[in-house]
Amino acid sequence: MELSTNGLEKNNRVRIEDGFWGRFTELVRETVIPYQWEALNDRIPDAEPSYAIRNFRIAAGWEQGEFGGMVFQDSDVAKWLEAVGYSLAAHPDPELERTADEVIELVAAAQHPNGYLNTYFTVKEPGNEWTNLHEAHELYCAGHMIEAAVAYYEATGKRRLLDVVCKFADHIDTVFGREPGKLRGYDGHQEIELALVKLYKATGEQRYLQLAQFFIDERGAEPNFLVEECKQRDGYSHWAKKKLPIPKVEHMAYNQAHKPVREQDVAVGHSVRAMYMYTAMADLARLTKDDGLLEACRRLWDNTTKRQMYITGGIGSTHHGEAFSFDYDLPNDTVYAETCASIGLIFFANRMLQLEAKSEYADVLERALYNNVIGSMSQDGKHYFYVNPLEVWPKASEKNPGRHHVKAVRQKWFGCSCCPPNVARLLSSLNDYIYTASAEQNKIYTHLFIGSEASFELAAGQVALKQQSRLPWEGYVRLELSAVPGAPFSLALRLPSWSCGNAIMKINGAATAYEIIDGYATVNRQWKQGDVVEWEPQLEAQLIAANPEIRANAGKAAIERGPIVYCLEETDNFSPLASLSIRGGSKLTSSFDPDLPGGAVVIEAEGRADERGSWQADIPYRPLSQLQKAEPVKLKAVPYFLWGNRQPGEMAVWIRTCSE
Amino acid sequence: MELSTNGLEKNNRVRIEDGFWGRFTELVRETVIPYQWEALNDRIPDAEPSYAIRNFRIAAGWEQGEFGGMVFQDSDVAKWLEAVGYSLAAHPDPELERTADEVIELVAAAQHPNGYLNTYFTVKEPGNEWTNLHEAHELYCAGHMIEAAVAYYEATGKRRLLDVVCKFADHIDTVFGREPGKLRGYDGHQEIELALVKLYKATGEQRYLQLAQFFIDERGAEPNFLVEECKQRDGYSHWAKKKLPIPKVEHMAYNQAHKPVREQDVAVGHSVRAMYMYTAMADLARLTKDDGLLEACRRLWDNTTKRQMYITGGIGSTHHGEAFSFDYDLPNDTVYAETCASIGLIFFANRMLQLEAKSEYADVLERALYNNVIGSMSQDGKHYFYVNPLEVWPKASEKNPGRHHVKAVRQKWFGCSCCPPNVARLLSSLNDYIYTASAEQNKIYTHLFIGSEASFELAAGQVALKQQSRLPWEGYVRLELSAVPGAPFSLALRLPSWSCGNAIMKINGAATAYEIIDGYATVNRQWKQGDVVEWEPQLEAQLIAANPEIRANAGKAAIERGPIVYCLEETDNFSPLASLSIRGGSKLTSSFDPDLPGGAVVIEAEGRADERGSWQADIPYRPLSQLQKAEPVKLKAVPYFLWGNRQPGEMAVWIRTCSE
Repeated sequence: MELSTNGLEKNNRVRIEDGFWGRFTELVRETVIPYQWEALNDRIPDAEPSYAIRNFRIAAGWEQGEFGGMVFQDSDVAKWLEAVGYSLAAHPDPELERTADEVIELVAAAQHPNGYLNTYFTVKEPGNEWTNLHEAHELYCAGHMIEAAVAYYEATGKRRLLDVVCKFADHIDTVFGREPGKLRGYDGHQEIELALVKLYKATGEQRYLQLAQFFIDERGAEPNFLVEECKQRDGYSHWAKKKLPIPKVEHMAYNQAHKPVREQDVAVGHSVRAMYMYTAMADLARLTKDDGLLEACRRLWDNTTKRQMYITGGIGSTHHGEAFSFDYDLPNDTVYAETCASIGLIFFANRMLQLEAKSEYADVLERALYNNVIGSMSQDGKHYFYVNPLEVWPKASEKNPGRHHVKAVRQKWFGCSCCPPNVARLLSSLNDYIYTASAEQNKIYTHLFIGSEASFELAAGQVALKQQSRLPWEGYVRLELSAVPGAPFSLALRLPSWSCGNAIMKINGAATAYEIIDGYATVNRQWKQGDVVEWEPQLEAQLIAANPEIRANAGKAAIERGPIVYCLEETDNFSPLASLSIRGGSKLTSSFDPDLPGGAVVIEAEGRADERGSWQADIPYRPLSQLQKAEPVKLKAVPYFLWGNRQPGEMAVWIRTCSE
Repeated sequence: MELSTNGLEKNNRVRIEDGFWGRFTELVRETVIPYQWEALNDRIPDAEPSYAIRNFRIAAGWEQGEFGGMVFQDSDVAKWLEAVGYSLAAHPDPELERTADEVIELVAAAQHPNGYLNTYFTVKEPGNEWTNLHEAHELYCAGHMIEAAVAYYEATGKRRLLDVVCKFADHIDTVFGREPGKLRGYDGHQEIELALVKLYKATGEQRYLQLAQFFIDERGAEPNFLVEECKQRDGYSHWAKKKLPIPKVEHMAYNQAHKPVREQDVAVGHSVRAMYMYTAMADLARLTKDDGLLEACRRLWDNTTKRQMYITGGIGSTHHGEAFSFDYDLPNDTVYAETCASIGLIFFANRMLQLEAKSEYADVLERALYNNVIGSMSQDGKHYFYVNPLEVWPKASEKNPGRHHVKAVRQKWFGCSCCPPNVARLLSSLNDYIYTASAEQNKIYTHLFIGSEASFELAAGQVALKQQSRLPWEGYVRLELSAVPGAPFSLALRLPSWSCGNAIMKINGAATAYEIIDGYATVNRQWKQGDVVEWEPQLEAQLIAANPEIRANAGKAAIERGPIVYCLEETDNFSPLASLSIRGGSKLTSSFDPDLPGGAVVIEAEGRADERGSWQADIPYRPLSQLQKAEPVKLKAVPYFLWGNRQPGEMAVWIRTCSE
């Protein structure tokens, strides 16, 4: 296996300093991480207990008791530790670090002498390890603990947890493989694959990379491991607590194990599983220069983002299995668009950018981040949407069972929950998503416009820069080079899709021509210390139409302004929102509203309200000819990510258009 | 209890002779009834066995074996016998009658000496009779057998089955009641109530009416019988086959037993159960002159038909529990609109018409009949929709689990199925829905315009008439009086809602003024034998708008022409149908198309097709400003009841409107 050494991540450092994002990262540091710590310890008074820390204490023999929570409960501790790692890297906090060190000792104490680590099987089903990969998330939990260990090691330099997970990974390597006596299998929930890549990068140990590749290569091969394993259990199901009929290979589409990954070209099944797998595939395609895998990644990217993605960057059209449905099926009201799935999409986009710097990956990354992901969290950091709808009628959420999964208000964060800690770990590692650099090509890509200080080691030498950004409210970015090498290098700034190709670059105040390469405005020159690059992508509110194949949005438009998708809320307009339409040629007026949480640009537009006065409540249908002319109204739209932070009510992203 | 004796049904005879309806009643007689007989006997080669006849043979001791099918399987035999009864009344058939007589002997042989009759409990759970009214449908099955017996008795004069069900009803009367030692309960699935009213009317036995009233009065009273019964079973559930938590009173809304029926004002829960109950309530309100019950019926009618009914006469907005959701929640794509529920609505409307002749009841009856109900059956009589959607995207039905219940093609009729035999018994008794007569008021109401010969006994004497109708394709009806009494009487012809109040009446060729009373054009005079009344309600295609509270139809219109609702099908237009819109002021051109099954009027309209050519498959979203002008297209709409009889494809009732 030939390994790529394009050195994208080595010795590069990025630290965020940004007005818009500062609020979110501070919220994560000051509220989310401490609150989750209380939750993991079952100390949130009126929330379901998590049991997660307690499970480790029981597994470690420090406490007596029964296992509590889900079979994958360990992963909540891991995700918390991972978020702590990122947070400490950006913002040292000795007390938090001491707490984390104690948790790490606890985790280490729960590890078996052979390296095995999983509190569910240790406490509840000893002897049944590795007998239900399909349902029991053992490798999934292992993967999250590996990610935590790498993050914590990179933040603190402490090897304790890294050693624990290396020992665990070494054990896994003795259990899984093609050699006789080993399991030729993989997890029902992908995660270990991308984690092993991180472990390889942190340790340089190629076996971890090879193990990741083994899991990816075996997935979907014949005979189907998950089906055969189920036969071994005689159909016994962990979730159903009884024997079920043996599933068919096609049922494994839910786990993306219905066919070899290289033959997959449509995003199917559970969308978080899919994203984690695609992320690992992209990692492996880059590190092993596997063009077949790269082609599969491109196909799956295209299908996911061009046929199965909401305008908010949400993916997963159905709550049945939290899954993809099929091309262009993007219902706004029965949507799933799970927060974790968009986070997985961001991981995938990030890895594709490392593979090949094309701006479309960053466009999607930005779309998911600024809309679906941050919209999932309330402005107090303690309430979350798991489902991120594009259309809400609160009464339907309450009274129509097909829409019960769509909550009209963010829910309190319960102990056992996947999305909030995922948001925490993403937002506290956001610095990893802003830039990539190619040392050999002497090129630094800026994908996201987020205020930050960064340094990169290129072949030409060390570069340090400071980015200041007025995004998302204004299209103005300023980069100042504080250290430059003696040889030329390239700066490549993303030309965002929302700029419609219009952006001005100034270097030291003078407008400068640039070359567009794969969507990046690129300038190669001998830079001087103190050089200032200003970058002004056109940022104007615009109405967006959806592909006619997306039936749910026919005759409708959405409002976007820069990376931000807008929505109508009942509180600014009225009910029913469906009776409103927007003039196709309407002027969109932007103004900053400091009263919205954090302050935000709101948009006003000319609309029409269907005539309602002449309808009596008890006339369901009548001739259209009786309808009076629609009345002109002023529509007010707010950023989607802020919806549901004021009075509960209806919400809609897609608005009917009218022509007059 | 004072009984009303307004003599609506006594000695009145109606026989259908109609071009449009003849096709359907012939289909029922020649295809549906024989096919169902084969199904009941497990002789349909590739269908699931019904077991229904076999269950009776085992219960009768004529055969050894296990019970098969659902706990309510007996009702399929009963509904078949009921349909046979109606069919024999209209169309004698000695061979069919002989078969039915044999079945009746079988049913009689399965009856216990004490009168009890239910093959499930006889074969599978002897000793557990009347211990699970909530789930086990014992009184429901009894009700259907009673309806069958009355229909068969009225058709043939044979008392054999009537005696069986009287004995059963007498037994039920010893089990249920307020006296000590009796069960103060009622069935989880209403049906016995309306059946006992029929039995009372057939036999004159008041105890049956009182028993019906007992069931209605007890329903929802405190303490809640169904909840208490569940406690007695320690929570054991027939369907779950295990103990479940004891339900709360509010969960009994599914069975309309969450509060006393007189306090109910919103249609909730399983929609078929609701309709059967409301039907019995209206029966009792009339027969016992119970104004409180009448008021409840009016409230429930208003809520059902004015806030929770689709334009096709479908009811039930969610497949979860085949149930109502809430006011104005009428999604077209995730709809339920079960065939049986619309049939129940027709029963309810029919009873309300007997209570008070207001045309709004007949308007709804006609709407449900000409659209949701007959649309459920394929033109070969062997394929059925249980769910009758207003919008279909076949791929979504297949691939989005939230729409799996919405089938894009009619399904083969399996042995165990409620809707097909319900359609059969309704269509074969359609003659009962055309007229009502008030003997005391000397008044004959014509609710439906269906060709028929009818005779009525009024206080003034005997009336015989012949109706000829060109409905639903032309607004022309002709009534000829072939026998008249010596004293005046009134003819009251419904002024249909779709005529917009415009209708011409001619008597013997001369335009005649009429009085409109509660929506009926009424003429009281001394009629002569041979008098001809011509009735020409305006029948023009028109665009219909929905109340703005019905969010699913915002900005859309449906096409109606007379009683027929129209739809667009992909085969006549193109995919995606959502890209089409109809001009609000479009001329609607009607023409008769003999090539459609049975021949039908189709409608052409001016529409617009959103520009699609400039969209590439892989551009999901782009600025609205790039959109080109919509192209003019000719839209073709066909009657909703005929959809899905040609090539499978998309279908839509509600079409976006455009203004230019």
